[in-house]
Amino acid sequence: MIGNLGSCNSMLITGASRGLGLQMVKDLVKRNERPKKIIATARNPAAANELQEITRSFPGVHVVALDVVSQPSIHSASEEVASIVGTEGLNCLINNAAINISTDLNTVTGDAMMKTFESNAVAPLLVTKAFLPQLQAAAAAQKTTGMGVHRAAVINVSSTLGSIQLNWGDGAQFKSYAYRTSKSALNMVTRCLATDLEAEGILCLALHPGWVRTDMGGPQAPLSPEESISSVLSVISSVTEKDHGGFLDYTGNTLPW
Amino acid sequence: MIGNLGSCNSMLITGASRGLGLQMVKDLVKRNERPKKIIATARNPAAANELQEITRSFPGVHVVALDVVSQPSIHSASEEVASIVGTEGLNCLINNAAINISTDLNTVTGDAMMKTFESNAVAPLLVTKAFLPQLQAAAAAQKTTGMGVHRAAVINVSSTLGSIQLNWGDGAQFKSYAYRTSKSALNMVTRCLATDLEAEGILCLALHPGWVRTDMGGPQAPLSPEESISSVLSVISSVTEKDHGGFLDYTGNTLPW
Repeated sequence: MIGNLGSCNSMLITGASRGLGLQMVKDLVKRNERPKKIIATARNPAAANELQEITRSFPGVHVVALDVVSQPSIHSASEEVASIVGTEGLNCLINNAAINISTDLNTVTGDAMMKTFESNAVAPLLVTKAFLPQLQAAAAAQKTTGMGVHRAAVINVSSTLGSIQLNWGDGAQFKSYAYRTSKSALNMVTRCLATDLEAEGILCLALHPGWVRTDMGGPQAPLSPEESISSVLSVISSVTEKDHGGFLDYTGNTLPW
Repeated sequence: MIGNLGSCNSMLITGASRGLGLQMVKDLVKRNERPKKIIATARNPAAANELQEITRSFPGVHVVALDVVSQPSIHSASEEVASIVGTEGLNCLINNAAINISTDLNTVTGDAMMKTFESNAVAPLLVTKAFLPQLQAAAAAQKTTGMGVHRAAVINVSSTLGSIQLNWGDGAQFKSYAYRTSKSALNMVTRCLATDLEAEGILCLALHPGWVRTDMGGPQAPLSPEESISSVLSVISSVTEKDHGGFLDYTGNTLPW
């Protein structure tokens, strides 16, 4: 089944001022069938020039200030989003904001481990908790037992680098204690949320967008942002209850934990 | 193969003032074939009464102060341990110290996530880094290409609760965002260390000791500390290069990540 993002009324993307988050917004606004309300969050909206330009050219794009490691910022953003989505709630939350601090065995520090874990694993959990009333409203509003972005979904942007199984042999060449650990932790957060939110009809999954030529991925990555996000949105549009609690890549294949 | 802990000259156990760490020391000292030097660390040795009693009754037991979340404490402990083990180095480091803060979806906080991650995942990494010169000395001293506690090993005490795969269905009944996430992160730390230390002959693995009637496990757990640790030490004594980078339980079975 190829899904239809037009059935997803509202979508929120964190970390949307650049990289893959920005590309998601760019891709979505050009579609005929798109979420009516696209909420793009950025730590500093005033400095998010490309996002601001998009809001002037396309309807239904809302830029909301959100620093995902600040509890007061999460609280303010959740109030603003509640007023944007109203009683229909939020259909899809994409926890995309993340950081990467280069850390091999020699250079890794406790501080790098803690900061990366906070941004990449704790923040998605706390952001999801804060937007839960909006996700629950969207899930409850749909007269269906199925799951998907037409109803309510939490998509955590993870990485194959977070796969413990794949961190071996050739798969272990990229060294990053802090980033890898934070993404394994995010995968567990995703699985915990999936078991807790299943009864309410909120789909949760971890999604690897591929290795992409962004500031984070670097110039030698094989995928352009356009290629990655086109595939990622195709996967997101078609996820169902069979994908709930899973770990998928941008082609829809299941990855080992 | 049943291994022989007599071939392990020195073993260090963190968090040995109570629970499973203390039981490891109690079990080891009574064996005929035991590590000659048993280094038991505790945050506050003066208050570790049972450990102090053991040092008065059995030879070769050294109690060392170590607060695993304090870098100055790790540094002092590594200097003290270096002088205890001398040029022979340290054969086996058991990262056992851990905390558990009760956290379900409603009660979990950023603070609980960060503190648990720091103790259970970051500390084992930083402790291992600090003792690496001693582990390297032990690995280099052995004229063998095999791996095991006769040479050099890092055993990270993990948990089935850290298995992302097993956190589903019946396996998801125990809710603990902070603890589960920290142990998944520890599993990734273990795998990163395994890939980095393999060439030096230092075995690294994650080990689930079972659900045990300790302060942490609670009274309803099926295993006594004696039963768990007897099995755990049997597994530790017989691990070889085939177990390197793996995730075992106290019976020696492999667990999914």
